[in-house]
Amino acid sequence: MTDFHHTKSLFHLPEGVIYLDGNSLGPLPKAAPARMGAVMQDEWGEMLITGWNKAGWMAQPTRVGDRIARLIGAEPGHVVLGDTLSIKVYQALASGLELRPERRVILSDSGNFPSDLYMAEGLIASLGRGHELRVVAPEEVEANITDEVAVLMITEVDYRTGRLHDMKALTAKAHAAGVITVWDLAHTAGATPVDLSGAGADFAVGCTYKYLNGGPGAPAFIYVAPRHVDSTRPALSGWLGHDAPFAFEPSYRPGSGIDRMRVGTPPVLALAALEAALDIWDLTTMEQVRAQSIALTEQFIAEVEAACPMLELASPRDAAARGSQVSFRFADGYAAIQALIARGVIGDFRAPDIMRFGFTPLYIDEGDVSAAVAIIADVMGNRLWDRDAYKTRARVT
Amino acid sequence: MTDFHHTKSLFHLPEGVIYLDGNSLGPLPKAAPARMGAVMQDEWGEMLITGWNKAGWMAQPTRVGDRIARLIGAEPGHVVLGDTLSIKVYQALASGLELRPERRVILSDSGNFPSDLYMAEGLIASLGRGHELRVVAPEEVEANITDEVAVLMITEVDYRTGRLHDMKALTAKAHAAGVITVWDLAHTAGATPVDLSGAGADFAVGCTYKYLNGGPGAPAFIYVAPRHVDSTRPALSGWLGHDAPFAFEPSYRPGSGIDRMRVGTPPVLALAALEAALDIWDLTTMEQVRAQSIALTEQFIAEVEAACPMLELASPRDAAARGSQVSFRFADGYAAIQALIARGVIGDFRAPDIMRFGFTPLYIDEGDVSAAVAIIADVMGNRLWDRDAYKTRARVT
Repeated sequence: MTDFHHTKSLFHLPEGVIYLDGNSLGPLPKAAPARMGAVMQDEWGEMLITGWNKAGWMAQPTRVGDRIARLIGAEPGHVVLGDTLSIKVYQALASGLELRPERRVILSDSGNFPSDLYMAEGLIASLGRGHELRVVAPEEVEANITDEVAVLMITEVDYRTGRLHDMKALTAKAHAAGVITVWDLAHTAGATPVDLSGAGADFAVGCTYKYLNGGPGAPAFIYVAPRHVDSTRPALSGWLGHDAPFAFEPSYRPGSGIDRMRVGTPPVLALAALEAALDIWDLTTMEQVRAQSIALTEQFIAEVEAACPMLELASPRDAAARGSQVSFRFADGYAAIQALIARGVIGDFRAPDIMRFGFTPLYIDEGDVSAAVAIIADVMGNRLWDRDAYKTRARVT
Repeated sequence: MTDFHHTKSLFHLPEGVIYLDGNSLGPLPKAAPARMGAVMQDEWGEMLITGWNKAGWMAQPTRVGDRIARLIGAEPGHVVLGDTLSIKVYQALASGLELRPERRVILSDSGNFPSDLYMAEGLIASLGRGHELRVVAPEEVEANITDEVAVLMITEVDYRTGRLHDMKALTAKAHAAGVITVWDLAHTAGATPVDLSGAGADFAVGCTYKYLNGGPGAPAFIYVAPRHVDSTRPALSGWLGHDAPFAFEPSYRPGSGIDRMRVGTPPVLALAALEAALDIWDLTTMEQVRAQSIALTEQFIAEVEAACPMLELASPRDAAARGSQVSFRFADGYAAIQALIARGVIGDFRAPDIMRFGFTPLYIDEGDVSAAVAIIADVMGNRLWDRDAYKTRARVT
């Protein structure tokens, strides 16, 4: 069994803080600054340009990809790091649409993260071929999977409520209708077990700064199923996706396998921080993390509901239908979250009324949950928030 | 006048190395590891998610953009950091094509960096509207600027020869024909003075890991002229380019000004290293760097030509037509460069026969040039390279 007491000791957690926002930005692995320092001093500083070979920078995006592949049920050699999640969504969508050239609908749901929808809108406008982004309610996705649909683009875990889509069932339904699937694992990777290979997913993308603890702005990843990867045309066809990047040929020839989804120069420093974070993931399995996550979210829901009747559970009550976060609706949620942050319980707010708390077994334990609930009960029960907080509402919480 | 002796002292340069490859990857600014450590410990570690506001991470891409704007003659508030150069090329190209919807030609030259051409090919294939990428010889660009051309996409300094295009003249010619210009400043920013505003450039993009010394995989930048920026539709329309990213609206509305060219979450750690590097740039001006760069390249050409008659100058002899690098053609160039690297003179090789040396006044001085030439003369004059080096030719040099 994973020693979560040990993994917790590997993170820097500020004094007086209970951090229930690792679903937005994971905390600093204690080993990350030294790792970064070593890469800067010993590799960049000493090797200079020769670091691309000597330090293995060029292979870093797929080397790290293989470490993430284990956490998401992907075949080794089919995940590569780079760019941001929005860019990777665009790549997957563009490739997916080309696999179904006669169809014109991208199907998604209103629980998807807005950036995914925005990237789809931008792609559709660029293509100018009358594609339609069809956005339905989360519970209506399945019924809307028809043979009009080219690509089904779904974020597995809803960023507001934590509701978990059934990847296996939706992918099977999609395939029966000839639909290509693009799964966004932003709130899944490191949060719940995924079996991309077993579910038969076509494309998947995700970020590494949430549950994977790669740091602010850490790079994204993309997965392409083995059956598609060598017939996928990268719309974003950069030199590091070329079959021979350093031959400097005048025309693009896609590399073999997942390498073709690389675009520009890899973010070496950011990947160094992520590698330090992934060392901690090597100490556990997603199954053990999931079991502990369910224990923590069940405890949190029970204790909050007992202490705070004014909070309405927004997340599914059934743990099997929920990711690794718990959300409550509350009209003054923004102000209440600010008050909690001031008391050291860091959750976040999502418009219009969602108070959101993430549970991350690598560094949050049962004692943290109880301590957080005591503070939440005090703040909510005694109405200790400042309604004027709305007036100075910050852009990010 | 800039104290280049002082700026040199601010870089870590390995013992026994003369680094003439800052045009590929700049060296480590001594202050960068401590800056990175502080951002990791004090911001990521202590502030966690609140760093987006408290530490100013959200404003970092435009704050850094303004520091680069000074070096490229851009109007303040019109440069933003993020993504890789290839992605920024795609954004600029896609936007440029939409400004000329009735035209079908992207004009570029065979001296452009292949990734720019590849990204154009990918965009054209995605659009599927019969656009053509027309690639002509560098000296034929001007004659090919016609009213068929939608976008002229030019890398100002040729990555192989260092030949410098005349941005002002080509932009004027382009505008007379109604053509939009996209300037790639990869080998310009920090190398030669640029006056984007004065030249009337429409779009410009560049990277920060070469002359700007931001580190391996440092983020790219994009410039959009004030007259275009509020009518530019970002093809890559991510949430951080939205007018209200944290309102989580269902549809995309572009932000005002250059912010709309942002896509995903900013690369906070990579930008921290870049900020440390830009502190050194604050100590000088591009005019002073250029004067010293010309002095160094003139010295290098004169000394190499005197000592190594077997090397054929590939760069323009006229300093005004040359960037901040000097290239020589030599049939066994790959092997010769490997031999030089083994002797501590780091240049690089570009297929098929280019030996390339970059000159970077912030940390390379006249003594370095003479010392490098002495080693080059020894290696070349005594044929001290291993022709078998070809057989183990590395991917990156």
